[in-house]
Amino acid sequence: MAQPISKNTISSLLKLHQAKQRNEIRLFIAEGEKMVKELLNSSFKVKFVCCLSNFYDENSTALSEVFSYIVTEQELSKISLLQTPNQVLAVVEMPNAPDEKLDEKGIYLLLDGIRDPGNMGTIIRTAEWFGVRAIICSPDCVDVYNPKVVQGTMGSIFRMEILSMDLVKTISAFKEKGTDTIYGAVLNGEAMSAMKFVNETKVLVIGSEALGISAELLKLLPHLVSIPRSLQAETESLNAAVATGILLNAISGQ
Amino acid sequence: MAQPISKNTISSLLKLHQAKQRNEIRLFIAEGEKMVKELLNSSFKVKFVCCLSNFYDENSTALSEVFSYIVTEQELSKISLLQTPNQVLAVVEMPNAPDEKLDEKGIYLLLDGIRDPGNMGTIIRTAEWFGVRAIICSPDCVDVYNPKVVQGTMGSIFRMEILSMDLVKTISAFKEKGTDTIYGAVLNGEAMSAMKFVNETKVLVIGSEALGISAELLKLLPHLVSIPRSLQAETESLNAAVATGILLNAISGQ
Repeated sequence: MAQPISKNTISSLLKLHQAKQRNEIRLFIAEGEKMVKELLNSSFKVKFVCCLSNFYDENSTALSEVFSYIVTEQELSKISLLQTPNQVLAVVEMPNAPDEKLDEKGIYLLLDGIRDPGNMGTIIRTAEWFGVRAIICSPDCVDVYNPKVVQGTMGSIFRMEILSMDLVKTISAFKEKGTDTIYGAVLNGEAMSAMKFVNETKVLVIGSEALGISAELLKLLPHLVSIPRSLQAETESLNAAVATGILLNAISGQ
Repeated sequence: MAQPISKNTISSLLKLHQAKQRNEIRLFIAEGEKMVKELLNSSFKVKFVCCLSNFYDENSTALSEVFSYIVTEQELSKISLLQTPNQVLAVVEMPNAPDEKLDEKGIYLLLDGIRDPGNMGTIIRTAEWFGVRAIICSPDCVDVYNPKVVQGTMGSIFRMEILSMDLVKTISAFKEKGTDTIYGAVLNGEAMSAMKFVNETKVLVIGSEALGISAELLKLLPHLVSIPRSLQAETESLNAAVATGILLNAISGQ
């Protein structure tokens, strides 16, 4: 089913550009042909799509089970947050927060105040690559349904379990269950070598871009690890997503 | 020495927003207090800085050896490419391309068509961390003096040797010198394990975000390596900067 879009609907979609309104309405935007197709194959519920009439004609089978608004290029660029809008975007229901299944074995990635949407998107994509069981974000992380985060995940956001929780409580819960393989990424920790215990639960904590892991959380972590730096290098740190990738590669022991 | 800026000077600085004009004038912009201070400690030549009068008064010692234009916030935001301009930016001379010192031992990073400025900036920063000897960019890479690249390097651009060269010729030159430790990052290569031969020359080739390593270059590479992916993961690839970090961590063998 398809129909033209009204000005009123466009206005209400503009609300989704802001985190506060997005979280009230419980909807977010995902853009581009590839993202929308991955979305239609995921467990996420698509409220409707907005697409150019050409795109609708060429993809009528794929779009047969969702409601489509046919939009002009001008209308699409108004709704879109991309500099060069694609031909289609979807308005998607935010999933309910999944149950806190911290009991299952696997790798858990805890993010303490990641603020940059580009970093967050790349981290979610990287976590999927390494088979991370769940990502747990502190409440001061950037909203994972921020459009730049959604696009940066390249679709991984539709397949990863992502929770927002107090990290001090989360770490305590892991410790109560006897998990001691909890690693905080810092600048002056021990070098992390590849670990082959793939069946164990392992927890990796990554701090914010500017401040690292908060002091309160840091003192709860049994192991502090670092990525060795060349002696000649003067750069102070690695990008948060790059550091996450290097440490997940080591911790996944593949 | 300091004086107010003229409208003419502002207009000519706007030319530096475009790659073509930037490369003709051989000047580029670096923004922010931290970047400008790293710059003043580097071998790069600062043509002049543009700063708010408060900033000039507080940093007159550091700025004593460069010419300063005092600008208003409005003027600064016109010249700046940041959404939230800092208090200072520098106009810097592009260095002459360094000699092709491919003879020195170390790690060489070859970039084949990296297009995204954010990725390029992060890759340069990561390369410095791991002590890469030189980065060699194919001519179709994004301009490394693009303002988003410069800012993304967090200062590493002032300390890294970066060349622009034909990569087919570069690989041939390495092979003629007897270097066989040349690794291309691909999706279906062998797993790369940590290598401890720190005194050897090693060459890592990273392909473009969308297309990977070009076919012409690929057939010249003696070793093709990959980062193992979790069996459950459906994501097609890692971000180019994350992949570069993981492979440099392995290749540097630290």
